[in-house]
Amino acid sequence: MTWAETTPGFGLDNLPYGVAPGPDGRDRIVVRIGDAALDLAGLTAEELVPPECGAMDLVPLMAAGPERWAEVRGILRNLLVEEANRPVVEPWLVPVDDLELRLPFPVADYVDFYSSEAHATNVGRMFRPDDEPLLPNWRHLPVGYHGRAGTVVVSGTPIRRPVGQRPTDDGPSVGPTQRLDFELEVGFVVGTASSWGRPVPVDEAEGHLFGAVLLDDWSARDIQAWEYRPLGPFLGKSFATSISAWVVPMAALDPVRVAGPSQDPAPPEYLQSDGDHAFAIDVVASIRTQAMRDRGDDAHALTRTDFRDMYWTAAQQVAHLTVNGASLRTGDLLGSGTVSGWDQATYGSLLELAWNGEHPVDLPDGSTRSFLEDGDEVILTGWAGDVALGPVAGTVVEARA
Amino acid sequence: MTWAETTPGFGLDNLPYGVAPGPDGRDRIVVRIGDAALDLAGLTAEELVPPECGAMDLVPLMAAGPERWAEVRGILRNLLVEEANRPVVEPWLVPVDDLELRLPFPVADYVDFYSSEAHATNVGRMFRPDDEPLLPNWRHLPVGYHGRAGTVVVSGTPIRRPVGQRPTDDGPSVGPTQRLDFELEVGFVVGTASSWGRPVPVDEAEGHLFGAVLLDDWSARDIQAWEYRPLGPFLGKSFATSISAWVVPMAALDPVRVAGPSQDPAPPEYLQSDGDHAFAIDVVASIRTQAMRDRGDDAHALTRTDFRDMYWTAAQQVAHLTVNGASLRTGDLLGSGTVSGWDQATYGSLLELAWNGEHPVDLPDGSTRSFLEDGDEVILTGWAGDVALGPVAGTVVEARA
Repeated sequence: MTWAETTPGFGLDNLPYGVAPGPDGRDRIVVRIGDAALDLAGLTAEELVPPECGAMDLVPLMAAGPERWAEVRGILRNLLVEEANRPVVEPWLVPVDDLELRLPFPVADYVDFYSSEAHATNVGRMFRPDDEPLLPNWRHLPVGYHGRAGTVVVSGTPIRRPVGQRPTDDGPSVGPTQRLDFELEVGFVVGTASSWGRPVPVDEAEGHLFGAVLLDDWSARDIQAWEYRPLGPFLGKSFATSISAWVVPMAALDPVRVAGPSQDPAPPEYLQSDGDHAFAIDVVASIRTQAMRDRGDDAHALTRTDFRDMYWTAAQQVAHLTVNGASLRTGDLLGSGTVSGWDQATYGSLLELAWNGEHPVDLPDGSTRSFLEDGDEVILTGWAGDVALGPVAGTVVEARA
Repeated sequence: MTWAETTPGFGLDNLPYGVAPGPDGRDRIVVRIGDAALDLAGLTAEELVPPECGAMDLVPLMAAGPERWAEVRGILRNLLVEEANRPVVEPWLVPVDDLELRLPFPVADYVDFYSSEAHATNVGRMFRPDDEPLLPNWRHLPVGYHGRAGTVVVSGTPIRRPVGQRPTDDGPSVGPTQRLDFELEVGFVVGTASSWGRPVPVDEAEGHLFGAVLLDDWSARDIQAWEYRPLGPFLGKSFATSISAWVVPMAALDPVRVAGPSQDPAPPEYLQSDGDHAFAIDVVASIRTQAMRDRGDDAHALTRTDFRDMYWTAAQQVAHLTVNGASLRTGDLLGSGTVSGWDQATYGSLLELAWNGEHPVDLPDGSTRSFLEDGDEVILTGWAGDVALGPVAGTVVEARA
């Protein structure tokens, strides 16, 4: 029990980290409890928390490693539990609504994986209808690619519809994407770096992970379809990737650890690990159109799915990413890939929900969607037991003239 | 004329920037002239150059923009030309051999393009023999993908042979790559950032470029071939990318500006630009095997090719990269793609030179190469008229046990 006011999802078991400017305009680390956030710069000045907590972003704390993370988490819980601490701590609580939350850490390298079997199968069926939907490599390694780190933005940032080359029967034409989509993902954030040239064993992989965010991998399907052969997605993805302002510590996910799915064929030894390395996180993608906002409607859930069903775990992704000697840096962001289940109601993108435009999705305002329209807000939320992840929100704004 | 001693390639017309620790162990900016380098931290302390020159890396100067770059270049030339400046400047000249050169800037996002028509055609012929060698998109846009920024290393860094999944008839097996290769590339370095959501017009693109390096895009062809569908190269490239320690200012390349190749079909308007946006840079890739080193042999040129023949220019690459609203950051690195000409003697990779192993390359030590062996050193050098680029050197070391 804590003396602070809590809200569902933001109790003592969560305590996610964010970054926001304080009254002096200087960025500081904040930790959410209920609808308020502890100003760690203030607590650092009072010498109640270690010096890393007084930094202008999360990097020094992220780099400090799992023991330090556990120590800080223990201190924060103690400060919020012991009534005797209340007089000194309570003045450093700020209402969350007063915070102008920033991107919580500078993204080093951003890798996006493709680890949902249902999503990879759906995409294969749509785009390579004459072939096996899963490519031969898919069950042997977690397929992934590097995305653009410099265009990862924090929840709430408006998403401008990108312009690019789209295929037509007469060759490409340049203009705003006609097939703008979201992708519902979970992202893991690397805290401690690894050494260049030294693979991270799968059983040590989670020790490098500082926390989790939700992630919206905005996608322009027409731009992507035209450009992606043979080197993969580029401008169809690079215009924006949104992540939540709050980084949920890995420790907060321990209660929802579960075994990953069985893997057939067995992956190579460097990807084999006993124990529970998947996480049962319920994730939801919702939409609120301009018409729904005008009518005062709540957002409408497009999909509800379970992250536990991903074929490849974050630990396996880290082991794979580094098996060739590539190093991890503090601030690396690992996107899970679109979280889709096998049922239509659990698909993690409009591409799949509307099956490439064949079955537009009905919305409560009477409209339908195959892809996103200007004014549409997409909101990702998640629950790991009693711990809330997200939100990630972004509203589509019209393309530049 | 300068009072300083010059060497071929490193006269007043070059003045490339690097970073190395000084006697106090603190990194500082250095500028090469001949076989020596000016310590800009010293010149900044003497208030002879602007404060950006006193930084621990190139970022503040790179971010300051073209006017500042021209101003600093003018000051440096004046310091090195006027005999009257010699007494105060000469004490800040350090022999290049005494410098422990660092990566000259932290790489923000690394994009690797694929802009040589001959290279893309060769790769297409080898890997998709039943199709048109160039994919339909290739002449309409500069194909590219994001690489791993965190594993870009400076010339001289040993390159450990990567381990990964390689295809066999019985499925993948894990082990050291058997098909390690180099790729001879030119890299452009972004100085001034651009705004998110605002495309950079092609005619303004070069104003964002601070300078040029040579770049070796080390590649594990077997790992890459197995993993790359459908999201592009990942572990086959991410273990290491080497760049030169010296960044040649764009102004030093002005004398070798030439018109780019004619493009058919005409690219879309956002990629059209009048004027000379290609650069006539002679680039060479050489090899020195362990046996050659043991015998005291010089490195052997594997290929000599001309960068002017690239189909897409750096200005077009920047315009394309940002047309969807993606922003540039200071430190973004743009690899040109392998520089290959149409003649076998001008191919920019062993994959092409030995044609996928069909025609191993003869070396002066009596051995042959289809791919790189442990102990092989690859050295990239370049000449833009009288201005030297590079070197980029890397020696292959055996895989981890």
